[in-house]
Amino acid sequence: MAPNTHAHEHEELDEARSWAGDFDPLGDASERKVLFSAFDSFRQYRRSAHLTTTHRRRQAFYALPKEHWQMLSEPPFSLLDNFNKVDDAIDVNADLADAIVETGLSSFGLPANPDQTDPSQNWHGIATAADVNKAHSTIRQFYRDWSAEGQAERDVCYGPVLEDLDQEFPDKLDRDEYLRVLVPGAGLGRLVFEICRAGFAAEGNEISYHQLLASSWILNHTAGPQAHELYPFALHFSNILSREQQLRKVMIPDVHPGAAMLEAQSTTETPFGTMSMSAADFVVLYSNPSQKDAFDAVATVFFIDTAPNLIRYVQAIRNCLKSGGIWINVGPLLWHFEDSRQRTHSGNDDHEGEHDQGIGEPGGVELTEEEVFLLIERMGFRIEKRQSPEERPDCGYIQDPDSMLRPLYRPSHWLARKS
Amino acid sequence: MAPNTHAHEHEELDEARSWAGDFDPLGDASERKVLFSAFDSFRQYRRSAHLTTTHRRRQAFYALPKEHWQMLSEPPFSLLDNFNKVDDAIDVNADLADAIVETGLSSFGLPANPDQTDPSQNWHGIATAADVNKAHSTIRQFYRDWSAEGQAERDVCYGPVLEDLDQEFPDKLDRDEYLRVLVPGAGLGRLVFEICRAGFAAEGNEISYHQLLASSWILNHTAGPQAHELYPFALHFSNILSREQQLRKVMIPDVHPGAAMLEAQSTTETPFGTMSMSAADFVVLYSNPSQKDAFDAVATVFFIDTAPNLIRYVQAIRNCLKSGGIWINVGPLLWHFEDSRQRTHSGNDDHEGEHDQGIGEPGGVELTEEEVFLLIERMGFRIEKRQSPEERPDCGYIQDPDSMLRPLYRPSHWLARKS
Repeated sequence: MAPNTHAHEHEELDEARSWAGDFDPLGDASERKVLFSAFDSFRQYRRSAHLTTTHRRRQAFYALPKEHWQMLSEPPFSLLDNFNKVDDAIDVNADLADAIVETGLSSFGLPANPDQTDPSQNWHGIATAADVNKAHSTIRQFYRDWSAEGQAERDVCYGPVLEDLDQEFPDKLDRDEYLRVLVPGAGLGRLVFEICRAGFAAEGNEISYHQLLASSWILNHTAGPQAHELYPFALHFSNILSREQQLRKVMIPDVHPGAAMLEAQSTTETPFGTMSMSAADFVVLYSNPSQKDAFDAVATVFFIDTAPNLIRYVQAIRNCLKSGGIWINVGPLLWHFEDSRQRTHSGNDDHEGEHDQGIGEPGGVELTEEEVFLLIERMGFRIEKRQSPEERPDCGYIQDPDSMLRPLYRPSHWLARKS
Repeated sequence: MAPNTHAHEHEELDEARSWAGDFDPLGDASERKVLFSAFDSFRQYRRSAHLTTTHRRRQAFYALPKEHWQMLSEPPFSLLDNFNKVDDAIDVNADLADAIVETGLSSFGLPANPDQTDPSQNWHGIATAADVNKAHSTIRQFYRDWSAEGQAERDVCYGPVLEDLDQEFPDKLDRDEYLRVLVPGAGLGRLVFEICRAGFAAEGNEISYHQLLASSWILNHTAGPQAHELYPFALHFSNILSREQQLRKVMIPDVHPGAAMLEAQSTTETPFGTMSMSAADFVVLYSNPSQKDAFDAVATVFFIDTAPNLIRYVQAIRNCLKSGGIWINVGPLLWHFEDSRQRTHSGNDDHEGEHDQGIGEPGGVELTEEEVFLLIERMGFRIEKRQSPEERPDCGYIQDPDSMLRPLYRPSHWLARKS
């Protein structure tokens, strides 16, 4: 799993060379496979979504007794019409997947229709079911990070980070150089963008190619605000009050990153910060001596529970944070590696045991919140602020607010200072 | 899957012959296998819980760098001590599983240590992983149905049913004979018990042997109120604030069915109803002409979304309900068969296609709530009462109230009358 050893800042808002520099996943066979699988999984979105969503349901529908499916085909039910509408929604979502593939291929100089016999370019047909599932959830994630409707989810998770930064650095506009803020697990880049918009130098870090490809597209390649349609809930058929609910459409992005930057530049009040993204294993990159004392703040949102070994995360954050710098955290403790089989970001097990560093390192432990606090304090942080359980607002994750089943988080929000 | 064709009322509170009569799953090879798998899954609870919960985590723990696991082994973390406490909790839960096996075997006249060469009695070693998972969730379910702590979940789901029955039959005590109420999907029997305690003749129906074995034990074989310990949340390590939270203990049953009945008999104010349980496929049994117009009320709680084809459920309820009788429903629409592979109650696929009736019938459809209402009205019911989405209280399902992730239902509550 070579993203451990390669890293490069990319995705500057103001230039086109998103994936340039010394970041070269194509140079390593196993790394290339992970990247190609991500590409292929987006390419397969359209076919797999039709197959598993509507095709399978049509088969089950026509397997009902004839008088049943006939009744349900007619108004007021019109269920076959609904299958068609869901197919249309899938096609709209698949257009996003295709756009991600197209801009990504262009960045890497890869052909859309590769020579199937050339392993250095043949990215077709290699995605696993797990890869395809990730493509599906990544597309849905645009709802959370880049639609107006996702604002409520963002307010709960990103709001406290922006408030803490504002409170910690009230005089940031007077400084000559930007204050640097690191966002590990940057996902689709919204928090990085918001921190940048607040005037900081924001650096995102992300290991998943699914997220990197999708964030690159939304940050650098969309045509304008509200330019693209997304049907975040169309593929799911349970706990729904009405078909209108299932087929609700949102527009993305709610804010166009480029337009927002231009707008900010036209005023002097809120200077736009700089923005970058590193494609790397968080632990390996930010534990490196080259990153020592590099950041004024680290903001982890729904991130620390991706650690098999949280101690490594704390070490990395301590390394890259300046003395007196702050670590802001918002999130639950849904330990991602509780199921030990999910051990690599590609969803494949064939990389296991290859590494002695980073997220692929053996071993794992799941701490309680109480133990997380104890650990952080023991490792050279002072916890200055923590939200009590009663104060925590409920927070959905890509959650249809009208569903009859809502998995709601009560994320922990705290602030620790490197002492 | 012969429960489709065999059915018998059993589990009368006041007698011992729980599984007697013409209900004979041992007489059919495939049915016997399903029953034996359920027995075996409870037998395997202890070993499988230790293996997948603590053994696997100890391995991951010791695979951490030595200085990491050593630090986490010492106070204030003491994580190895916590693994030991979780093992103790597993053993306490496993005692419940063993008790279920013991009383169940006794009811069926099966040996605890069967002759491994005799297929008519060898119930050891045949449970699949899915069967074992069901045993785990069934043990946890005692929290919801039979602990004082589960009262909040029961209030939201069973409360409206008891209120509707009370409102519909205010003069029930003046009647010469009991009013009959059917509870499909009776699970661990708490709603059946409560309806019975309210003075009705309550009949539960259940197809799952896991549920039937566990409900038989809790209804007929526990020693008294608060007689047994249960650690409902000990096996899960995510979204926890403290180890005390993980190791919280509850006592079951909060109310002892036999004692409650004796107490009711000593007063004349609230005569105890009768109670029975049928082990059968709901659709097959209650669509039968012998059940025509048999019930004054049907109460479905978290049940209708177990239907592959809801039309069959509505037909069965219409058949067994008296003219003017009421159907009370509380629950979400989490269609259980959305994943078409989960097609039999045993979790195996090898029965597929054998039946043209009941839950094993081919075909499936997932309706919205709006469509459910349209269907019920079209099929001869008048909806007299329905709760609007805004009025619906949140409801967990075997939910640790302090977890940092709570999947909350907003179940639909409505009342329909057979017209």
